[in-house]
Amino acid sequence: MKVYIIGIGLIGGSMARDIKFLYPDSEISGIDVDTDHLREAEALGLIDKQGAMDELKEADLVIVSTPVDALLEILPNVLDAIGEKTLVIDAGSTKDLVCQIAEGHPNRRNFMACHPIAGTEFSGPSAALRGLFEQKTNIICEVEKTAFKLQEIGLEIFRKMGMRIRYMNPVAHDKHIAYVSHLSHISSFMLGKTVIEKEKNERDIFDMAGSGFESTVRLAKSSPAMWTPIFKQNKNNVMEVLEAYIENLQAFRSKLKEDDYEGIYSEMDNTNKIKKILKGIPLNKSQTE
Amino acid sequence: MKVYIIGIGLIGGSMARDIKFLYPDSEISGIDVDTDHLREAEALGLIDKQGAMDELKEADLVIVSTPVDALLEILPNVLDAIGEKTLVIDAGSTKDLVCQIAEGHPNRRNFMACHPIAGTEFSGPSAALRGLFEQKTNIICEVEKTAFKLQEIGLEIFRKMGMRIRYMNPVAHDKHIAYVSHLSHISSFMLGKTVIEKEKNERDIFDMAGSGFESTVRLAKSSPAMWTPIFKQNKNNVMEVLEAYIENLQAFRSKLKEDDYEGIYSEMDNTNKIKKILKGIPLNKSQTE
Repeated sequence: MKVYIIGIGLIGGSMARDIKFLYPDSEISGIDVDTDHLREAEALGLIDKQGAMDELKEADLVIVSTPVDALLEILPNVLDAIGEKTLVIDAGSTKDLVCQIAEGHPNRRNFMACHPIAGTEFSGPSAALRGLFEQKTNIICEVEKTAFKLQEIGLEIFRKMGMRIRYMNPVAHDKHIAYVSHLSHISSFMLGKTVIEKEKNERDIFDMAGSGFESTVRLAKSSPAMWTPIFKQNKNNVMEVLEAYIENLQAFRSKLKEDDYEGIYSEMDNTNKIKKILKGIPLNKSQTE
Repeated sequence: MKVYIIGIGLIGGSMARDIKFLYPDSEISGIDVDTDHLREAEALGLIDKQGAMDELKEADLVIVSTPVDALLEILPNVLDAIGEKTLVIDAGSTKDLVCQIAEGHPNRRNFMACHPIAGTEFSGPSAALRGLFEQKTNIICEVEKTAFKLQEIGLEIFRKMGMRIRYMNPVAHDKHIAYVSHLSHISSFMLGKTVIEKEKNERDIFDMAGSGFESTVRLAKSSPAMWTPIFKQNKNNVMEVLEAYIENLQAFRSKLKEDDYEGIYSEMDNTNKIKKILKGIPLNKSQTE
């Protein structure tokens, strides 16, 4: 299998590791505007060689795993360049615009719009992990627009990587993912910001930070180059969820101001049911600390 | 060593496990208003027997590890009941009020005001863990008000448990802990609430939740009975940090509304330095997922 990975960072690199493991005979080429990343990916053995766009005609699989702004620019060029039997997948955290961009392209049927919900707060080829996608959810949008034979090939790869598949329309995807992913990132970034601002004057504050702070602020380590275009492309949904979040925080603050401790108790008590809900999420690591 | 633990939940139970391990000859008695917890603690071997307040005269060590509202009520009674050589420690997440309560008590010198910054989102005796306090920070307030000999005994126990000690005045403690602990809990609870509210209408939303959501919402599993009195006792500081947090979220939302993506990028980029700061926090588990 000839594989081309465009954007060889955390996600592309992790896909490379899995493919190399699952298909030892595959040949993986990397394409990236960041030449340091390319060299690093080669040195780490994520890719066998550097590739070029004019080779895509020969590809069996092209994975576009760039930030979502670059994805919109690159995808039409990729679809122009591929062969008849090439499967193209993406890994973008927004799905509406990329589906719009692909719509009507003569090779639309070669494209499968994917969002493997997996990642860490780290980025670049050195962050790539074998098995990253195991038990993770992969959301596929507009699957009916992908050629049946290519669907089969893609699903087989995802199955071997251990992913659960969910089908969803791109508009619903972007709306829901704003709640369960994009909002978490903003809440974490702003928490980090709030505490860092305070810390300017209070040098010892982080000495007091325990694992609770650490887990809520973990996503604030994420890459701004990846997340800025996500927020841009999903602006309307993100604005809506952020508004709902701010309103809930303000209501909590009002209850505190008015000494409504019964209200505060029941807010938290009602939210405790997140325990049960989270148990339903696959791949929860045990959280004993 | 005769030890009495009043409030035998996550923290008291974990202290019991460590003490039993470090001092095999110690005899641990439990006192708790929740008789189910007491029986559970006995069944789990956390305590050797159930104790009573009128036995405290014989105690070498009394640990008051109840929610902080109960702590304020119980502490004076404990100080009334103990013997001359008894060391009393607490484990409350707020320190100003408890120090005020102890102030002027004839046995003030038997009390050491402590906040071991450790815990999980779980509660009750079954959540108790051996080694919970290893490499954690224990903040001791007004140490100079504790009898020197009893300080030594307390510090030796904490040292054996593996804790780092920091000394702080109770007002500064409560101000700083509002940033690095209390705010994290509110941000997490309100994140959980926001997403649960949405989920009422959108049943499949949690199917999309990945580990990012899980880590930001982890603290929303915490006990309302523990956290309501913490927010009450630290109301002014919590109001202040919550206000700062809401302002940062609103500023982020304004930038998004005005399509100021450079601004959004640099917000996140500046906050990325949390990576370096967190590396300085002891006991970070490796976060590779």
